[in-house]
Amino acid sequence: MQQIDLNCDIGEGFGIYQAGLDEKIMPYISSANIACGFHAGDFSTMNKTVQLALENNVAIGAHPGLPDLQGFGRRTMAVSPQEVFEIVLYQIGALHAFVVANGGKLRHVKPHGALYNMAATDPKLSEAIAEAIYCFQSGLILFGLAGSELIKAGEKIGLQTASEVFADRTYQRDGTLTPRDRPNALIHHVEQAANQAIRMIKEHKVRSIEGIDLSVQADTICLHGDSPSALRFACELNKRFVSEGIRIARA
Amino acid sequence: MQQIDLNCDIGEGFGIYQAGLDEKIMPYISSANIACGFHAGDFSTMNKTVQLALENNVAIGAHPGLPDLQGFGRRTMAVSPQEVFEIVLYQIGALHAFVVANGGKLRHVKPHGALYNMAATDPKLSEAIAEAIYCFQSGLILFGLAGSELIKAGEKIGLQTASEVFADRTYQRDGTLTPRDRPNALIHHVEQAANQAIRMIKEHKVRSIEGIDLSVQADTICLHGDSPSALRFACELNKRFVSEGIRIARA
Amino acid sequence: MQQIDLNCDIGEGFGIYQAGLDEKIMPYISSANIACGFHAGDFSTMNKTVQLALENNVAIGAHPGLPDLQGFGRRTMAVSPQEVFEIVLYQIGALHAFVVANGGKLRHVKPHGALYNMAATDPKLSEAIAEAIYCFQSGLILFGLAGSELIKAGEKIGLQTASEVFADRTYQRDGTLTPRDRPNALIHHVEQAANQAIRMIKEHKVRSIEGIDLSVQADTICLHGDSPSALRFACELNKRFVSEGIRIARA
Amino acid sequence: MQQIDLNCDIGEGFGIYQAGLDEKIMPYISSANIACGFHAGDFSTMNKTVQLALENNVAIGAHPGLPDLQGFGRRTMAVSPQEVFEIVLYQIGALHAFVVANGGKLRHVKPHGALYNMAATDPKLSEAIAEAIYCFQSGLILFGLAGSELIKAGEKIGLQTASEVFADRTYQRDGTLTPRDRPNALIHHVEQAANQAIRMIKEHKVRSIEGIDLSVQADTICLHGDSPSALRFACELNKRFVSEGIRIARA
Repeated sequence: MQQIDLNCDIGEGFGIYQAGLDEKIMPYISSANIACGFHAGDFSTMNKTVQLALENNVAIGAHPGLPDLQGFGRRTMAVSPQEVFEIVLYQIGALHAFVVANGGKLRHVKPHGALYNMAATDPKLSEAIAEAIYCFQSGLILFGLAGSELIKAGEKIGLQTASEVFADRTYQRDGTLTPRDRPNALIHHVEQAANQAIRMIKEHKVRSIEGIDLSVQADTICLHGDSPSALRFACELNKRFVSEGIRIARA
Repeated sequence: MQQIDLNCDIGEGFGIYQAGLDEKIMPYISSANIACGFHAGDFSTMNKTVQLALENNVAIGAHPGLPDLQGFGRRTMAVSPQEVFEIVLYQIGALHAFVVANGGKLRHVKPHGALYNMAATDPKLSEAIAEAIYCFQSGLILFGLAGSELIKAGEKIGLQTASEVFADRTYQRDGTLTPRDRPNALIHHVEQAANQAIRMIKEHKVRSIEGIDLSVQADTICLHGDSPSALRFACELNKRFVSEGIRIARA
Repeated sequence: MQQIDLNCDIGEGFGIYQAGLDEKIMPYISSANIACGFHAGDFSTMNKTVQLALENNVAIGAHPGLPDLQGFGRRTMAVSPQEVFEIVLYQIGALHAFVVANGGKLRHVKPHGALYNMAATDPKLSEAIAEAIYCFQSGLILFGLAGSELIKAGEKIGLQTASEVFADRTYQRDGTLTPRDRPNALIHHVEQAANQAIRMIKEHKVRSIEGIDLSVQADTICLHGDSPSALRFACELNKRFVSEGIRIARA
Repeated sequence: MQQIDLNCDIGEGFGIYQAGLDEKIMPYISSANIACGFHAGDFSTMNKTVQLALENNVAIGAHPGLPDLQGFGRRTMAVSPQEVFEIVLYQIGALHAFVVANGGKLRHVKPHGALYNMAATDPKLSEAIAEAIYCFQSGLILFGLAGSELIKAGEKIGLQTASEVFADRTYQRDGTLTPRDRPNALIHHVEQAANQAIRMIKEHKVRSIEGIDLSVQADTICLHGDSPSALRFACELNKRFVSEGIRIARA
């Protein structure tokens, strides 16, 4: 029986601010990437979010971002590999403490936003991320874009990796995602998105916007939890997977 | 043979800013309290400081403070016990990651500034601190003001504690330190300060400003590392301890 | 014809975070207190919010808070009068720049959260706030709790002041608001709240929870804009004022 | 009689942290660029620094940086022109308030660090900076690298500009500074640096590292105030200018 992990960015509020429908998305996912205080999240939000994940039996991952709260970690910054090593290590450690104190276990790490994107194509930043994770706990799983430098860096250092794919984004012939500013970047139709996901899982293939079949490794699918329509999509995807005999389980 | 721990707040810079003569004070201390990013310290400073402590074979402790970088964690803030629990847990975890990644071992926790002072007299905040430490690693040692609520809370929950005394501060008849705004709060004369320290270690006694002998538990002495005169004092204290047969060793 | 100012805290988001239904509350208010970056608000939010207020012909005020984004400026902090002077000055200046650049005019200042509450009873902090405003622009109006030290400090230095009252909070016999943790602190019934407001405006009186009539100066009423029910309340209050012949106009 | 402005970055501490020998450099400069809270500086530091500049009769400028305190505003960030407009406006406004409250007058604006460097070659960011300044106070002087996009944007919008040159840096044939990682980037010899400065002022020429004479506009020279040797250099430059009949005066 085939299986897939469904992950979602969780705990991305800060102080009084809420972001995302964390409690509502939990039933549909198997892995939660919890913000660690740099791009979002704070000590109180992290504690509550870890408890929420444990109550829902969802695997807990750290979701470290760039030190840019005002920009939500989405702005590229000229950070050195050494700084990236330290940025990731600091945030993994902080989240780890909440997981331990609540009786859980940290399972994976997925970089956030600009850090995720920068690492996808930059071998040195990817190595810095992989090294930070490995030096802290070599048993952690590294989540990264399927086919990216980040996945390569993780494999190279000896980490277990999970290749992330997107159900609702289109792919280009070189395997990269179509940039968001292009008209056909997003797949708005739920059934079409589900079909793309199912084919990636079952056949390890995805059709590019140019009409070419690409090979792709799909270990985990990224879901969004920030709008009612995102929730409906998550619900639909769950149903389709069940009917297709695909088991949803942590990576 | 009697022994005493000498501790110092270390790694209290931020970004390009330096604070304290960290490299110079290291040879004179047995325990370093390393700032964790809230009142001071950042991911890069923490990594370097942990490495410096390991090179000097100095025991490493977390030095969590209030979330107030501009005020260096010295301003009292109306934080709840729950918030204090989370503030401490976050920072211990962050520092722990750097210690682990550098092959060391986290040994103790000493709250900083206003958090230290608030905890000294507030049982609920003290319990929150002790609980955060205990839930993370029950083998960590809690450093607190000798005779304070913090030491009591640590003992109550089952943590090993280290009672902190001051060589260069005078005591009042109730065992508290003479407030800094009083004329006789500080002991400026090195020999007199060393004598007070030695008596606290050997006889467990200190004479208050009213001339009364008080009982005091002295497990660790706080040294300052922020000025050349502080360094000279640390050096002198080391010499006197050697000549008095007192061994300097981690708590 | 009698008149009253209706004010509301606006622009209290940060980065991607939204707080409050700013666009929806605008039609019901005459003065907007705009967050300035310390407890909430950031450069982008401030610019947008100033433009929104100008489009709605709502008077613009600065809403400076304590430097505590994680706590939304609600935690009491031991800041000195000198620090309060500087905290207020910095934030007024920052907001003023956006108002000037958008062709508007800064009209008032209302401290936020813990700063507002601390100033209400502390003459020294109140004087520091009044002095910061006066030194920057002596024509600005200071908003403060009716009968508070803040209003006194404003009058003393020569600022125009606006005494703030609450429609949906009960008063104690000494003129202070019933603390929120008491069962009868809030007036949930819209008509009852409107009645209290109208009596404060027309008769300058409010009945305390002990049943005693108190004198009160009502220049501006604080509205909330953070929930649909708050919006409905604002709408109702507007209607009642019209039917009672009370004109809503900036202070 | 020829004249030149000498400017220096001032007030770049934060909280308890000091950076630079502000009091000692003041006698040697005619313009102070004061940090505004993003890359460095805070409300207390800004207030003190403004007072220091006024006491020394030094012209006051705002020195806005990127929102990156940990990186001291030195890391390139992918900020949009709109964000740059707002970042600059916020910081100019904040500093302006301290200048007004202390009875002074804001005179110029010089972007800091990565913002200065990004603007030097990016017309859109430069226009955003120039627009923020112009919309706030069209009489402010914009300081930028001689020949840069920033100077062009300032002239285009109608601001007075001051072209900045460096005494202790070498130039390349295209008029740009030799990057710091090249061996011949810095001029270590004080007399040689002074000679370069004097020639730029008197002859409007500088010899590039390739040995070619370039035309250069020299309105203001950047001095450093962060080390005893920088102070000695500033002192020497002052002496040489006097002996060469060059008057040091604000731009």
